[in-house]
Amino acid sequence: MNGAESLVRTLGASGVDTCFANPGTSEMHFVAALDQVGGIRCILGLFEGVVTGAADGYARMAGKPAATLLHCGPGLANGLANLHNARRAASMVVNCVGDQATGHRPLDAPLTADTEGWARGVSSWVRTAANAAEVGVAGAEAVRAARTSPGGIATLILPSDTCWNPGGVVAAPLPVPPAPMVAPHVVGEIARVLRRGEPAMLLLANDALRTGALAAAHRIAAATGAQLWAPHGNRRIEHGAGRFPIARVPYVVDTAVATFANIRHVILVGEPRPPVGFFAYPGKPGIMTPPGAEVHVLARPEQNLLAALEALAEELGAPAVPSPAGSQPEAATGAVTAESFAASLAALLPEGAIVVEESVSFGRGCYPACHFSPPHDWLAITGGAIGCGIPLATGAAVAAPGRRVVTLEADGSALYTLQGLWTQAREGLDVTTVVLANRKYAILLREFANVGAVPGPIAHTMMDLERPCLDFVALAKGLGVEAAQAADMAAFNDLFAASLRHKGPFLIELAI
Amino acid sequence: MNGAESLVRTLGASGVDTCFANPGTSEMHFVAALDQVGGIRCILGLFEGVVTGAADGYARMAGKPAATLLHCGPGLANGLANLHNARRAASMVVNCVGDQATGHRPLDAPLTADTEGWARGVSSWVRTAANAAEVGVAGAEAVRAARTSPGGIATLILPSDTCWNPGGVVAAPLPVPPAPMVAPHVVGEIARVLRRGEPAMLLLANDALRTGALAAAHRIAAATGAQLWAPHGNRRIEHGAGRFPIARVPYVVDTAVATFANIRHVILVGEPRPPVGFFAYPGKPGIMTPPGAEVHVLARPEQNLLAALEALAEELGAPAVPSPAGSQPEAATGAVTAESFAASLAALLPEGAIVVEESVSFGRGCYPACHFSPPHDWLAITGGAIGCGIPLATGAAVAAPGRRVVTLEADGSALYTLQGLWTQAREGLDVTTVVLANRKYAILLREFANVGAVPGPIAHTMMDLERPCLDFVALAKGLGVEAAQAADMAAFNDLFAASLRHKGPFLIELAI
Repeated sequence: MNGAESLVRTLGASGVDTCFANPGTSEMHFVAALDQVGGIRCILGLFEGVVTGAADGYARMAGKPAATLLHCGPGLANGLANLHNARRAASMVVNCVGDQATGHRPLDAPLTADTEGWARGVSSWVRTAANAAEVGVAGAEAVRAARTSPGGIATLILPSDTCWNPGGVVAAPLPVPPAPMVAPHVVGEIARVLRRGEPAMLLLANDALRTGALAAAHRIAAATGAQLWAPHGNRRIEHGAGRFPIARVPYVVDTAVATFANIRHVILVGEPRPPVGFFAYPGKPGIMTPPGAEVHVLARPEQNLLAALEALAEELGAPAVPSPAGSQPEAATGAVTAESFAASLAALLPEGAIVVEESVSFGRGCYPACHFSPPHDWLAITGGAIGCGIPLATGAAVAAPGRRVVTLEADGSALYTLQGLWTQAREGLDVTTVVLANRKYAILLREFANVGAVPGPIAHTMMDLERPCLDFVALAKGLGVEAAQAADMAAFNDLFAASLRHKGPFLIELAI
Repeated sequence: MNGAESLVRTLGASGVDTCFANPGTSEMHFVAALDQVGGIRCILGLFEGVVTGAADGYARMAGKPAATLLHCGPGLANGLANLHNARRAASMVVNCVGDQATGHRPLDAPLTADTEGWARGVSSWVRTAANAAEVGVAGAEAVRAARTSPGGIATLILPSDTCWNPGGVVAAPLPVPPAPMVAPHVVGEIARVLRRGEPAMLLLANDALRTGALAAAHRIAAATGAQLWAPHGNRRIEHGAGRFPIARVPYVVDTAVATFANIRHVILVGEPRPPVGFFAYPGKPGIMTPPGAEVHVLARPEQNLLAALEALAEELGAPAVPSPAGSQPEAATGAVTAESFAASLAALLPEGAIVVEESVSFGRGCYPACHFSPPHDWLAITGGAIGCGIPLATGAAVAAPGRRVVTLEADGSALYTLQGLWTQAREGLDVTTVVLANRKYAILLREFANVGAVPGPIAHTMMDLERPCLDFVALAKGLGVEAAQAADMAAFNDLFAASLRHKGPFLIELAI
């Protein structure tokens, strides 16, 4: 058995059944082994950013890692931005990167690069296999590393000779350590802080945003008056009617600072830091809670967040609370505005939808508008590297067949990884992509205003996406995806509703 | 004066007049300064791989560096693959990367990444500015580093506060050290080797592939019988009728090994190593010249290659030789084959054209077919990171207005950085892109055969680009570029000739 076959068999035994891939020459033995062994669904992306973003979306919905298959250093490099987002989501990814054969590396052939060095910045675990015999066990360790709470990217670099040489050994699955429990004295200390009745907020991340944990958090909030907040970017929020809504930290620094002005205690639940500005601005604070606010840690990211919240609720003697009631907006007609779009989305969102939000500036009202839409999941960009939306949606759709994925995509961001539409078409994935086409980098125009300068011709050139106009219907057609344009809300409503009945992907370009 | 303004003024004083950019929030002060100061043409790319590839193409044709402007670690990451190619081309790039403000970095905001770490693998010089006062001098040093022979990527990382804070100081241009001369005793030693009359090859890279150096190399070859070879991937070859043709090392290992079987001496002229296989294969050698061949260094990459070749020709008493005569093929009609396509390209190529070759498997016959086409430049992928063709063409067209750029682009590779077409449209660049659409990763099918396995369904899935078919005419239209399809050589000839008269970019999808 060669190393590649031992790896494919090991991954399968460890529960990996999906591989997002953009292979090259050095990965051919891996591809051959996928055919020989079977049992792993292999999905091609036409660009590595699609592959890595899809692996992120898959992990968020499947709760287990997919494998990737990337080609040498530059192939990894093309996938780094979405691995950065996946790292910030604490997503589980078994990131397999082929590379030059061990004996060939010293010759410094053209494609040779510092694959390990590039991997480190996004990975919780990196290993370059030294020979075929260790590929299997390295694969099992990679799966364990990816699955170890809170989840991470395990990068396994495979010099091509470690795949083609005989001597491969299939490794048994390695036990994944359970998420560590929070100590009772920590729970007690946090309870004492909350009982003081001073203004407090819980900042909840990752698994603390699933329904059970949010129910416990709502008990705590009801009993103590503490506010509940999620970071602006999150792995996955279970959201909608019958669930427990949670607000997200405002993106705009001034808004966040005003919102948190009275907070005295910040209690971290799986988030490693108090809310910080996405960027620094001259004369504005970096941390958005007041300087005098005390920061407390209920649970570190790797700990069992559900158990911590339930223990805290018990410690406080907080009774169960019902999920709040509220009404779903009605679909809007007339002109396209941020408000009308949010209303129509909230009105038309189907039960079980998976919303992927990379709408950047225009779609910020969508999430709160959907608090009482039928139950759904909400996946957001986590690391700020734009170009994650279409790939995330692709992976989420693979992980959750039978559920409609709705991608809210800014036009500027869509252009980073548009190739993912082709994978959606090839795999027949039920994804509705809404491209919010303002034909500019609108967020930069806002940010430029913060600079205090009047945009000159170069600044305008850097921020407008006209001259020429992008035609997303043509682009989608070029990638095999049906598409149509809407210029008002009535047209959008009709297209969106039709898209939900459409088998496979559909793209709506909404002029905003 | 803030740091950003000091940098823009310094870059301008140092001769940088072009900036390829995909800025974000942290670069807004830089953008504002570009408007305030003027004198630098700023060109937007919709994806960072377009930006960095364009900077590479610009440098290859302009002989001086452009600046880039990229956004934080993930923005740099998206540009790394084409920076890898630029590094392998020894291209000059002043690679400016905005980043989190100095005081904000410790807060580990979502977009924070190891920007320096990612830059190192492609850069000959990396610096993170510590404050506004040092930005100017760091900029001058970056230009010097980029321009220092043989050329390199100088990455200047700019925390946003170093741009917005006052205290910027404009730095005077720093003198660029001349390329070191080869010592006479080295020239004498190489002459002695060549005079033995044993089979020898000169392997020429970078500036050794310009007309003057090739003329000297042909003198040496005529006097000694030495063969002349260029690496398969090169920065720029001055090529065509009235010039001195040079063959490129075959990509296929078996072919190269057979070609070089009798070589006894490999003389390196600007290339750091003897010809090595692009990849290793089981049981095949990594170095394509025989194990017994002696490797000699006439000139290291950073040395003056033209002077070294002329000195060697003088040392050998080699008289001037005329450029060889030969005939241009006639345009082919009928079915599209690799041979007919190469013939038509060679027949129709206009004088002064700049050919960018990323045709991967289908277009390998094009370069030799053009030996006697009107004089032109030939730019090839150097580092093997696909997705360089369209960006390279974009930058070359910016650097050489009035000359037609012809991009030979494989369909699979085109999908990596297709966004560059939009920049070509926006800037009105005279680029004819020929997409050679075989609807597969043909090179991988060949490479898979080398594995010795029969491709199964997964292997086929990883290598075909059908289901759905890509429609490059629609994709080009979506990005604002006129396009048409051709299915036979007569149609291609007509479209290609028309494209040469077309103002601005045009794309031809050629079904192969």
